Amino acid sequence: MISENVNEINFKKGLVPAVVVDYATNEVLMLAYVNEESFKKTLESGTTWFFSRSRQKLWNKGETSGHFQYVKEIYVDCDGDTLIFKVDQVGAACHTGNRSCFYRRIL
Amino acid sequence: MISENVNEINFKKGLVPAVVVDYATNEVLMLAYVNEESFKKTLESGTTWFFSRSRQKLWNKGETSGHFQYVKEIYVDCDGDTLIFKVDQVGAACHTGNRSCFYRRIL
Repeated sequence: MISENVNEINFKKGLVPAVVVDYATNEVLMLAYVNEESFKKTLESGTTWFFSRSRQKLWNKGETSGHFQYVKEIYVDCDGDTLIFKVDQVGAACHTGNRSCFYRRIL
Repeated sequence: MISENVNEINFKKGLVPAVVVDYATNEVLMLAYVNEESFKKTLESGTTWFFSRSRQKLWNKGETSGHFQYVKEIYVDCDGDTLIFKVDQVGAACHTGNRSCFYRRIL
């Protein structure tokens, strides 16, 4: 069920970052960008769709790897300019094979 | 101790989003942007420094509210264009008084 909070997302600047979080463990898996069209496709399909800034096109995470992300919950922040997608992650979120893209510790 | 992975951060485009996560619970608290200068000030001070896009200046989270974020761990993603700050959050991360800025559920 989609809440009225959906109207709080501000797509006026075009792209909004989405933090993808493992639904079961809360681990941050990756960050990618959505525009209004990819957000609608995410709601319709139940899997994550993003806008690739380098390729300038929509992509469905898992379309080539099979590592789809099934969306369980979505949250918007206080400013309406960042999203959280809580997902069931198939396989690895990262193209390197790591479960999370954040596998390199700095501090 | 700062790992060599620090050199993997790509500041060439200027700003890098940092996902701020509660060190104890893994809850995503907020997202803000860092440039190279604010990142250095974060390492030096042990508290989070960001670059405000609306005010076009550096800010130290907590400087007015007292709700500082003490940085315990930092991670960089596979592309070098997103960071995670794992923090000990004093009080609320959100200016609304909510613990997390992501208090509005859409789905």
